[in-house]
Amino acid sequence: MGMYEDIVERIGDRERVTRNETVLEQHSKGLAYHAPRKPDVVVFPNTAAEVSAVLAYANERNIPITPFGAGSSLEGHIIPVNGGITLNMTKMNRILEIRPDDFLAVVEPGVTRMQLNEALKKYGLFFPVDPGADATIGGMAATNASGTNSVKYGVMRDQVLGLEVVLADGTIVHTGGMALKSSAGYDLTGLFVGSEGTLGVFTRLIVRLQGIPEATNALKASFVSLPMAAQTAAEIMKAGVALGKIELVDEQTIEAVNRYKQTNYLVAPTLFIELSGSATSVKEGTEIVRQLCEEGQCVAFQMEDDSIARTALWEARHHAAFAIQAAYPGKALLSTDVCVPVSELAEAIRNTRQLVEEHGLTAAIFGHVGDGNYHTVLAFDPNDTEEVTRIEKIHEHIVRYALARGGTCTGEHGIGIGKRRFLYEEHGDSVMLMKGIKRLFDPNGILNPGKIFI
Amino acid sequence: MGMYEDIVERIGDRERVTRNETVLEQHSKGLAYHAPRKPDVVVFPNTAAEVSAVLAYANERNIPITPFGAGSSLEGHIIPVNGGITLNMTKMNRILEIRPDDFLAVVEPGVTRMQLNEALKKYGLFFPVDPGADATIGGMAATNASGTNSVKYGVMRDQVLGLEVVLADGTIVHTGGMALKSSAGYDLTGLFVGSEGTLGVFTRLIVRLQGIPEATNALKASFVSLPMAAQTAAEIMKAGVALGKIELVDEQTIEAVNRYKQTNYLVAPTLFIELSGSATSVKEGTEIVRQLCEEGQCVAFQMEDDSIARTALWEARHHAAFAIQAAYPGKALLSTDVCVPVSELAEAIRNTRQLVEEHGLTAAIFGHVGDGNYHTVLAFDPNDTEEVTRIEKIHEHIVRYALARGGTCTGEHGIGIGKRRFLYEEHGDSVMLMKGIKRLFDPNGILNPGKIFI
Repeated sequence: MGMYEDIVERIGDRERVTRNETVLEQHSKGLAYHAPRKPDVVVFPNTAAEVSAVLAYANERNIPITPFGAGSSLEGHIIPVNGGITLNMTKMNRILEIRPDDFLAVVEPGVTRMQLNEALKKYGLFFPVDPGADATIGGMAATNASGTNSVKYGVMRDQVLGLEVVLADGTIVHTGGMALKSSAGYDLTGLFVGSEGTLGVFTRLIVRLQGIPEATNALKASFVSLPMAAQTAAEIMKAGVALGKIELVDEQTIEAVNRYKQTNYLVAPTLFIELSGSATSVKEGTEIVRQLCEEGQCVAFQMEDDSIARTALWEARHHAAFAIQAAYPGKALLSTDVCVPVSELAEAIRNTRQLVEEHGLTAAIFGHVGDGNYHTVLAFDPNDTEEVTRIEKIHEHIVRYALARGGTCTGEHGIGIGKRRFLYEEHGDSVMLMKGIKRLFDPNGILNPGKIFI
Repeated sequence: MGMYEDIVERIGDRERVTRNETVLEQHSKGLAYHAPRKPDVVVFPNTAAEVSAVLAYANERNIPITPFGAGSSLEGHIIPVNGGITLNMTKMNRILEIRPDDFLAVVEPGVTRMQLNEALKKYGLFFPVDPGADATIGGMAATNASGTNSVKYGVMRDQVLGLEVVLADGTIVHTGGMALKSSAGYDLTGLFVGSEGTLGVFTRLIVRLQGIPEATNALKASFVSLPMAAQTAAEIMKAGVALGKIELVDEQTIEAVNRYKQTNYLVAPTLFIELSGSATSVKEGTEIVRQLCEEGQCVAFQMEDDSIARTALWEARHHAAFAIQAAYPGKALLSTDVCVPVSELAEAIRNTRQLVEEHGLTAAIFGHVGDGNYHTVLAFDPNDTEEVTRIEKIHEHIVRYALARGGTCTGEHGIGIGKRRFLYEEHGDSVMLMKGIKRLFDPNGILNPGKIFI
């Protein structure tokens, strides 16, 4: 009896075990440049018990397991590079419990952040991590995702209080709990968060929630140069205002958005800022930010407090990723994800811009400057080996520049496939501990092989 | 040649390797009830290289290593239960770097929080974790300490961005870095934080800093009953005010303080609250808190915004621990450390108070109610086996009550010696993963044996 029939027998539902070509194709790639590879079979589990049955089966036979959520990974996490079984977790999308008085919720991994926020509205609460895509909570935990809100609320690892995890051999374990803090033994929850599907498969998550701020104000300021914009961002960080978000978008990106959306945003390095908190703290903060932007010689300053106008004001930022894709039809995209100490950001961006121009390439630079994390999106023809080499050189230079300043090669996307060699440059003397943990948790190496480690 | 001479040879300084009885005695106990045990020798390393040399030596000979900081552990972490070498880290107390623009500092493990805060004053910055004692940053990281400020700033694990750690075999490794966030591989930093000296010895820490708030206001409100005070605390948590601290002290503790300090504080369950942030947000928050306290039928409300008066107002809370010790001369103290979901706190405290009275004992109850963490301090005669049994029963009941509600047996003190059996009740199905990690990092089990695991 073949693998397919074996799994059907364990799941007991032919509908949720498929070899359909279209479905395999859909599970063969992420959003970035990495070479696609189809799984041999895609399973849609409904319960932890089903995940456990599939893993126990795969572990005995050394069959690779690749967990799959919304498919929005930018580092190829969901590509089954050695084939095998892809676990599509999107049918496990139940919100099991919302405890408004405890500011926490218990969810299955396939719940998306928008789905959760929709359910939280009536309690005046929300889930703060927003990576852009409507990712699943399980996938966001797997990569320790963050995004525009992390400057105020922290990253995924700060939100996950506890996990139910299925280990490689099918064992179901529980970590953490519902207390806001604990010193009970090793922090397994934090170890699983960011492990990119290589240590276990999440089947349940306990996450922290936040109260929706009383007031929110969106600001947009354009500057004469990228360094001036970045420098102003650093000043705003130090001012201690009620900062909710602070994003930087460079002129190339604004240009791409204008082309893509037929808009006519001022083509200049632009800071998108959101202040949130009590009405008065937002009012105060707005005035301070306005002053700092003027001192930074901003050439245009705009402000919107009503929610529709706020969305419009942020549109250029929100469309950035899509616009860049549209601007380079048929090309593959590589997004760098370095994060540097905040004081190094302006110079790092200046250096990156210069580097890109030296190589005669175009690139969009934008990012979460509040925590020193910025993205350089480079478009290239994956079949033009000479161009690929150039792109790789640039990525390497950007990463090494960041590492030399105490930074990291990935602030929020994860190592995945494309940054594995950089992990060794960044954590050369501790990677062996990570590998030891990997071998301990997954002796047969069935969990998401080809990710994180070389 | 004996161990002593071997170590002297490796350290090359007889002054920093001692078998002096008084020194051994000083390194034989913590602040709590656990049975003391003297180490065979105490070493005062100056560098990571010296720590590495001692560990490499001890690892070859299976000699236990117990790291020691300020000696303020409440769970016996620093008691060398099997003798061996105690590493007193207090000579490694250099502040290596302060980067005000990056809101971070690089320190050696023996730096104390007050020493660090003294050095940070001139930058308008401070290190937010305050466990009460003037603990070392290394020790606080080892137990994932928190304290009064954690409701606003988080716990130690949230502050430590990177570590230099000496492993059991003497290997020196580095984790994390200076970026405010990273998704580069497994979170080894978070794994070492809270490992209670069982996975490695910290020799350098990169920690986050915070800006000193523009305004701070201290409030004190007394209530007719403990549940009313706890309930009001929960309401204040939900109000979204600029909360800096929120502490609850029960009447027995106030009474003990009055006896200890010859003060005459109103003997009633009391909330100690600190608001901090912008001047206006503190002003706003004060009014909201005052209203909520009135709705909670508070019988006395006091407020101080100048710093000396604030300290005076908080004195009762700050002296609590010492006062309780003074109140029970010659008795041993056991402090419970459970943390429950915030909504369960009022009922948990009511249940604890009732339990203590049923057993005809006196106990002080106080804690960090902002995150559901409270302490029950029980005084007992360690030689009265009948009383010891009663105390253990009460501790067990309090812990099981918390665990049944998704809470934890320790919010901030750590497992140490006294809570090991509760770790198995709390994390029964994942303790084997913790033990596996322990074996992986410390195959010979030389690092702080007898802590965390049975």
